[in-house]
Amino acid sequence: MKIALDAMGGDVAPETPVAGAVRAAREYPHLEIVLVGQQQAVEEVLASYPQRPSNISIVHAAETIGMDEPPVSSIRKKRDSSINVGVNLLKDRKVDAFVSAGNTGAVVSASTLLVGLLPGAERPGIAIMLPGVKGDTLLIDVGANIDPKPMHLFQYALMGETYARHVLGRNNPTVGLLNVGEEEGKGTGFIRETYGMLERAGLNFVGNVEGRDLFSGEYDVIVCDGFAGNVALKTAESLASAISQVLKRSLAMSPITRLGAWLSHDAFKALRQEIDYAERGGAPLLGVNGICIIAHGASTAKAIKNAIRVGYESANHGVNQHILASIQKHAIMQ
Amino acid sequence: MKIALDAMGGDVAPETPVAGAVRAAREYPHLEIVLVGQQQAVEEVLASYPQRPSNISIVHAAETIGMDEPPVSSIRKKRDSSINVGVNLLKDRKVDAFVSAGNTGAVVSASTLLVGLLPGAERPGIAIMLPGVKGDTLLIDVGANIDPKPMHLFQYALMGETYARHVLGRNNPTVGLLNVGEEEGKGTGFIRETYGMLERAGLNFVGNVEGRDLFSGEYDVIVCDGFAGNVALKTAESLASAISQVLKRSLAMSPITRLGAWLSHDAFKALRQEIDYAERGGAPLLGVNGICIIAHGASTAKAIKNAIRVGYESANHGVNQHILASIQKHAIMQ
Repeated sequence: MKIALDAMGGDVAPETPVAGAVRAAREYPHLEIVLVGQQQAVEEVLASYPQRPSNISIVHAAETIGMDEPPVSSIRKKRDSSINVGVNLLKDRKVDAFVSAGNTGAVVSASTLLVGLLPGAERPGIAIMLPGVKGDTLLIDVGANIDPKPMHLFQYALMGETYARHVLGRNNPTVGLLNVGEEEGKGTGFIRETYGMLERAGLNFVGNVEGRDLFSGEYDVIVCDGFAGNVALKTAESLASAISQVLKRSLAMSPITRLGAWLSHDAFKALRQEIDYAERGGAPLLGVNGICIIAHGASTAKAIKNAIRVGYESANHGVNQHILASIQKHAIMQ
Repeated sequence: MKIALDAMGGDVAPETPVAGAVRAAREYPHLEIVLVGQQQAVEEVLASYPQRPSNISIVHAAETIGMDEPPVSSIRKKRDSSINVGVNLLKDRKVDAFVSAGNTGAVVSASTLLVGLLPGAERPGIAIMLPGVKGDTLLIDVGANIDPKPMHLFQYALMGETYARHVLGRNNPTVGLLNVGEEEGKGTGFIRETYGMLERAGLNFVGNVEGRDLFSGEYDVIVCDGFAGNVALKTAESLASAISQVLKRSLAMSPITRLGAWLSHDAFKALRQEIDYAERGGAPLLGVNGICIIAHGASTAKAIKNAIRVGYESANHGVNQHILASIQKHAIMQ
């Protein structure tokens, strides 16, 4: 199986993507990792590793799309960017998945325009795994589609449920609809219409859930519009970082608390691992007619390695065939 | 100055509101606290305190609106509920502020219907203080209006800016617009229209901000629609609680980490205080023609006491006259 990786994507590129590719190549010897990016720059970073794994190859892409460039115009102007070249490999079925920590909007646009959507799918959605007290929850969409229609949210539920079932191995996964209250009838007209569609669909639909359920781990899948999802995700990132900064400051306040912090070191390490996004790797862009995985721009080498693993697992479980089947089945039912 | 408190509102009522009222009456002897609720039940709780402060009085209200009752129909049906009676005291100018930890929707509806909005104000908005690394940020709206128009968001900016200036004492407060990216032109049409209005208003408008800015403390005021604001707030609550649960579990994992946790006890206490919502008290419902403060249903006695303080400060600084002036000034400019 071949996984293409955007070697130029992310805050520190090509160094971090290459480091992640090397880790993945060693840990998953049955995979072939295709680094997509400026040949010379990628070769130079690769050369810094004493042993170059034989299951890493390079496909040259002359241009790079910056993290803050306008997505649609940049993929049109920079046809030879690492994102365009990588997505075209996916389109031509030369690779089984494409992974990028680059400009999210550009990856979404390039995948939608070049590879296209699964037949019947109306919009792509980004699904992210949130760590929870009782387990992980898949939240879809976190920003691919910030002004969706009820049908889009309905399809996100189908996509997320299918992913949870076939890739995550959840049995009869529960699906919740993110809202401002639990009672039926809460929310805007848009949300109430989506609620009705989900109720009739024969999914394991648990009704409305609230922001407080995102990290409880009580639900397998939570569906939301990309605006609220994006805000919630970034709020969570910022709060986690604020708590850790304030805790660090508090723990440094006296010799006794510093000793306590030193003794508790293993506990903090365990906490960090449990809530570490890097452990969960990338976020699948569902609805696209090919496996596309979006990683955080600040991804570490470990996060990149895990995003490659997520790409492999999605391809290995043939998630898109299952999503297609679910969309077709529910198109007849609606 | 007289502050009315809904004695029947919150998860443990009338016990917790009465406890908060007693604390407030002792700490702020210049205030008169008016407990609104079932006379006998309130008297019984008050009788459990050895000394009843002389600056506490009771106004009887025969009915109680439950935390999960439908807001509009319950305030219409239960005309003698503690919320209706309290809001009517505000309407008749018999008190200077009304504080409730009860059913938020019912408080919003009763205030809007009975007291009415400030002339020119189109919708009320709930403003909440978020603790941040560099200071607190006022987020408005967190759920009074889940399907707002650009003009509503624009007015929330005016209300929040005025509150930050006159009640919080911030000099030329910065105002940000919650969006999915920082660049101008990001977001839905609704957000872009609001952006244009804010840009022309002559406020200290810093442009778009993201979910990650909510807890940075970089901004004085952040404006958002009530749906996203509600989701963000509840997400933050849930994450903070998840982190603390997982940390507790991690710290208990060995005798050494348990010793470490015991030594670090003061640091955790400092952290809790810094991020404790109870310290910040209630959230003002801005835009209403009277001071109305909404407290969390799970408020402790300390949180109730602080919500009473917030009500007093709002009334003392005449925040509504300033909001009215700001709305009138900008109505001419628009």
